Amino acid sequence: MSRIIKLNSSIIGTGNAVGVKEYEGPIGKLFDYHDKDDYFAADTFEKAESELMHISFNIALKKCGLDREDIGAIFAGDLQNQCVGSSYGLLGCNIPYFGLYGACSTSCEGILLASVFTTHNIFERCVAITSSHNCAAERQYRNPIEYGGQRAPTSQWTVTGGAAFIIGGEEEGDIKITEGLPGMVVDKGISDANNMGAAMAPAAADTLLRYFKESKTTPDDFDLILTGDLGYEGSSILKELMGIEGYKLDNHEDCGKIIYSKERQDTHAGGSGCGCGASVLSAYILPKMQNGELNKILYIATGAMMSPDSLKQGRSIPTIAHLVCIER
Amino acid sequence: MSRIIKLNSSIIGTGNAVGVKEYEGPIGKLFDYHDKDDYFAADTFEKAESELMHISFNIALKKCGLDREDIGAIFAGDLQNQCVGSSYGLLGCNIPYFGLYGACSTSCEGILLASVFTTHNIFERCVAITSSHNCAAERQYRNPIEYGGQRAPTSQWTVTGGAAFIIGGEEEGDIKITEGLPGMVVDKGISDANNMGAAMAPAAADTLLRYFKESKTTPDDFDLILTGDLGYEGSSILKELMGIEGYKLDNHEDCGKIIYSKERQDTHAGGSGCGCGASVLSAYILPKMQNGELNKILYIATGAMMSPDSLKQGRSIPTIAHLVCIER
Repeated sequence: MSRIIKLNSSIIGTGNAVGVKEYEGPIGKLFDYHDKDDYFAADTFEKAESELMHISFNIALKKCGLDREDIGAIFAGDLQNQCVGSSYGLLGCNIPYFGLYGACSTSCEGILLASVFTTHNIFERCVAITSSHNCAAERQYRNPIEYGGQRAPTSQWTVTGGAAFIIGGEEEGDIKITEGLPGMVVDKGISDANNMGAAMAPAAADTLLRYFKESKTTPDDFDLILTGDLGYEGSSILKELMGIEGYKLDNHEDCGKIIYSKERQDTHAGGSGCGCGASVLSAYILPKMQNGELNKILYIATGAMMSPDSLKQGRSIPTIAHLVCIER
Repeated sequence: MSRIIKLNSSIIGTGNAVGVKEYEGPIGKLFDYHDKDDYFAADTFEKAESELMHISFNIALKKCGLDREDIGAIFAGDLQNQCVGSSYGLLGCNIPYFGLYGACSTSCEGILLASVFTTHNIFERCVAITSSHNCAAERQYRNPIEYGGQRAPTSQWTVTGGAAFIIGGEEEGDIKITEGLPGMVVDKGISDANNMGAAMAPAAADTLLRYFKESKTTPDDFDLILTGDLGYEGSSILKELMGIEGYKLDNHEDCGKIIYSKERQDTHAGGSGCGCGASVLSAYILPKMQNGELNKILYIATGAMMSPDSLKQGRSIPTIAHLVCIER
């Protein structure tokens, strides 16, 4: 059975917001909003993450000239335990809310489900929103940043960022979503929370291979194969895994490599987090599609679905990768 | 804009599994599977929860005479941080997986999304699976059970249980899913993790009121208005809230009140958890529809979406309630 989902939807508009380090990165000036101290006027990092969602959503609505009443449903998720970033962040919106959890793959899971809803005219417009906050994620999964723990070379830097994608019917926007492929849970035995790239790369390879085989396409059919947050480590593993299967990924890029400067910013293996792929796609990649630099891309967001407790129990990291095909 | 989603799908079959206390309850003999010690042959409670999912899914497949290859996608979630119960539980299934988080509302969120997928023929058959485990939930949200903490009168007892619902096209099963209404995030300021019924009742009222108004129906149009796990406290608050709005809920029942014996089992305000509504719907309510005792019901699963950390930070509990209309 082919699991590729045919979609006829479009991205009407997006909004994004990031923290200080992301603003200081190579594409920092392209983000819609940045905060001066990563608190976003909240008193905890967890609340700051909810603000990221709120701000991204409001910017997206404003850019599209839409009101909240125009949105049929929100598909959202984040990295905080029980996805509270989203539930607090979307309080008061008065819009039906489908809570998602796919770790860093959630941005693509949301875009895919929102596209299903608009393709089949269940609602005219839906929104996919995701976020992550470095300080909230670090103290939840690893150590509070104040602890100053030594970071491993394969460690990724959780992005403080969020993005909202307003999805509508095919005719509403220039950027079309034409296909989606949901991921399967993959676990190759990696149990090191400081090497999520290695854990997630096999999931990305699994989804990509299924997509190429089922759609009878090759990497050359796309201008860009964009992963969400494999970082330097995961990205090179993905290329290797795909090479073994006979697919050369010369046109592969990763949002975790794009968002920070390797030379200047000391983020080791690059960026990660729900907000990584989402904010880079929104601020950097989609504008390149809008101006004709890119015409057809695959966006594959990968997620490492461990919990703080499962890590303490020594379990390996289950991962997943969802895919959408975006065309101009 | 009406947010009611028209659905043309059916529940082809279900499977469920529970722990010792649930088996000893008033409907215990109706469950498909029960374990002798709540460990389900695993060495941690968290792994036991994954086993619950696995077992429920396998039973459901077997009852329907289906294989894993017949399933287009799984919609699943649980209460563990980062929903690891599901991701570990569904490892090796080789079926696309949409991870959901709606706390105890996840069962209905999953059934609704699976129905959308089959209604629009995206996949011929999908599965919605949820679970909860008393010991995993208690040590995550409150205290390890070994601590022997005093329970408040409004405390609910997290159900050790899981259920899988195989959803197919309208013609495939006798039990049809005809409408769905996704919930909105509601927060009325309750911050007591020992009174989730009070936190969730306003969400149930919000969704029910929207449903009755948008569909121009009244409670009398249904044989049963079944909530997932409001328990005794939340159930009475729901009735009161609906009464204020002019709706008399005489035909309201709650799975959290059904699953345990108030007299015999000392569960205070009744059952709760993702597995509560799902297992009672699967084992007790749907068979009543199958044999003609009930013809048209509303199933509203409510979720309290706090995290262990948000509670420690003194924040109130955001809640949500998703609804589906099930007809024979």
